[in-house]
Amino acid sequence: MSVTEPQGFRAAGVAAGLKSTGARDVAVVVNDGPLHHAAAVFTSNRVAAAPVHWSRQVVADGRVDAVVLNSGGANACTGPQGFQNTHKTAEVTAETLGISATDVFVCSTGLIGEQLPMDKLLAGVGEAVQHLSDGGGPAAAAAIMTTDSVPKTASYPSSPDEPSEGYSIGGMAKGAGMLAPGLATMLVVLTTDALVDSETLDTALRAATRVTFDRTDSDGCMSTNDTVVVLASGASGVKADPAQFAEALTGVCSELAHQLIEDAEGASHTIAIRTINAATETDAETVGRAVARSNLFKAAIFGKDPNWGRVLAAVGTTDAAFEPDRLDVAMNGVQICRDGGIGEPRELVDLAPRLVTVEINLNAGSESATIWTNDLTHDYVHENSAYSS
Amino acid sequence: MSVTEPQGFRAAGVAAGLKSTGARDVAVVVNDGPLHHAAAVFTSNRVAAAPVHWSRQVVADGRVDAVVLNSGGANACTGPQGFQNTHKTAEVTAETLGISATDVFVCSTGLIGEQLPMDKLLAGVGEAVQHLSDGGGPAAAAAIMTTDSVPKTASYPSSPDEPSEGYSIGGMAKGAGMLAPGLATMLVVLTTDALVDSETLDTALRAATRVTFDRTDSDGCMSTNDTVVVLASGASGVKADPAQFAEALTGVCSELAHQLIEDAEGASHTIAIRTINAATETDAETVGRAVARSNLFKAAIFGKDPNWGRVLAAVGTTDAAFEPDRLDVAMNGVQICRDGGIGEPRELVDLAPRLVTVEINLNAGSESATIWTNDLTHDYVHENSAYSS
Repeated sequence: MSVTEPQGFRAAGVAAGLKSTGARDVAVVVNDGPLHHAAAVFTSNRVAAAPVHWSRQVVADGRVDAVVLNSGGANACTGPQGFQNTHKTAEVTAETLGISATDVFVCSTGLIGEQLPMDKLLAGVGEAVQHLSDGGGPAAAAAIMTTDSVPKTASYPSSPDEPSEGYSIGGMAKGAGMLAPGLATMLVVLTTDALVDSETLDTALRAATRVTFDRTDSDGCMSTNDTVVVLASGASGVKADPAQFAEALTGVCSELAHQLIEDAEGASHTIAIRTINAATETDAETVGRAVARSNLFKAAIFGKDPNWGRVLAAVGTTDAAFEPDRLDVAMNGVQICRDGGIGEPRELVDLAPRLVTVEINLNAGSESATIWTNDLTHDYVHENSAYSS
Repeated sequence: MSVTEPQGFRAAGVAAGLKSTGARDVAVVVNDGPLHHAAAVFTSNRVAAAPVHWSRQVVADGRVDAVVLNSGGANACTGPQGFQNTHKTAEVTAETLGISATDVFVCSTGLIGEQLPMDKLLAGVGEAVQHLSDGGGPAAAAAIMTTDSVPKTASYPSSPDEPSEGYSIGGMAKGAGMLAPGLATMLVVLTTDALVDSETLDTALRAATRVTFDRTDSDGCMSTNDTVVVLASGASGVKADPAQFAEALTGVCSELAHQLIEDAEGASHTIAIRTINAATETDAETVGRAVARSNLFKAAIFGKDPNWGRVLAAVGTTDAAFEPDRLDVAMNGVQICRDGGIGEPRELVDLAPRLVTVEINLNAGSESATIWTNDLTHDYVHENSAYSS
């Protein structure tokens, strides 16, 4: 699994001392080719971190040779000094690898508003490059964790038994809070050995993130550092069919998105909000997002209270097409709200399982979308009131 | 204080058994005239409760003779039966008082999605009418409480020593959660003995709520029942200057809004988010609201962590006019973020006091606005995961 699953990639993850715990905190992923095609999507937050500004330029020509990532510091809101630090990180990585700094993509994650300890970081980069190997994916996945409790990796094919098209895709992700649309506080590196050009990569990546990471809304907060990058080495020699490749990439992104939401800070329930029979897909998304952002609804789920009134109160704040007296809501299969009013007894809903499915029927069309979120818990408040490192 | 402060009003609050605690839960406020002018604003939630639908019609002609309010049940999402119950409540109140049902304004608050126990409610209305008195304001204020820990009342003049224009204004409010823009889950009844017509009342009410209740955003959740109604008896015989009246009404609304946010469910800090030097007042409001809705920021304040990075991350999600590298943020007077980067040491900020002021300088114009919110605490999660009555 992870980013070294496809041919043509090496990776490493080392402990450079950025994290006070002594855990791994610097990762490098190198594409050894023969191709070096790449595409990326970034946070839409206007307060973007220095590495986001840098990496946007790096990937603009569709070529990325290496990705260097650090946890233990976001390098966001750090001014000109922060940008110089990102630039320096790329330069040192490039020199060590014998490539151009403008082909080195940089990602950072951690606390906003503090300068990175550059001596430690650059020493870590040097060490990581020495440790690069085609089995280094798991160590790299561990090195990008912050409040994540487990590393997140996925691949296509997902097992040796699964039929494939002769190429593979690997991925790693980090993110456990500040997860929201327009991408979560998350860093995702995807790799593939398919023969695929950067334009096809870009199209496939946007199609994949639109229905996976963009529909993951843990706490409505949008990060300054969100980045998803995909690198293609072409090392399998197999030319990918664009549609099939997009589908396979979406599968890997979907698996990583689910791992992110399952590991969301303090969550005790994973909640799938499925809006059906909407007039447009946008309406379905808007309704799901409004419910996913209702603290009252999310606290009720934590308390195992199937409080459909809070669902309707959230739906009512949107401009989606619907008639209030035609709304139906089911929770875990029980139709507790019918025609905007009282349906089956709420006592019939069992909210003990981790997964909660909320189905909202707008009765206004035929489009649908699912937004993934989690409950609002004591542990969320605790982790986010204590987290400052 | 409260709604019986002005001449021409009687009120009562009784226990009708809607609340399992046996506390007061039905209130009636009567305008004995000679005038019966009124104006009201309601939730913008499209899933509006039955009493909101009813009362919108009642106030449409600018006349309201009485307001009947109940806690212990919102009568929202209750279908045609719910609307019939509201209608019946108005009819019984009208018959008992010898007035027209179409001049009886109805408000309900409590759990969404359950029918009201009409036998208890109507008996309570009868009892409340029997207890009406010109000293009944405080009992009425107590009867509309749900999770409120204290009743909320205010008046103009705020004390006998304050100079006034010869008339008075009284008000009561309830609301402790689901507080948000477009009005909170709150019911507010305002009374005045000024000589003022319903058009002037309407203009003054909209001006007052725009800068008070509409800028109170506790948890981003918008209720199905929010209502603010103002009644004028004219009993003082003093003709009010429209501008002066609007100012006095704004003062009373501001006082009630502050009491609401001070009593917000589980809050340990009251937070004033002041956005200055915005290009437009709308920009200033938008920025303040985005920060007020960031769970990460609010949890940080609970933890006494002056995490300005989370402020900037929220500001960055808006479309307000600003340059990221020209943003300044001060907390409790300490300039911890300057030019979008690191300012004074965060250790200098003392977040022990209940009131936290966050000043965001957009450096993009000369407009400003303040949004009031509170922190996200363990108690908020607890109260809203347990609350189902």
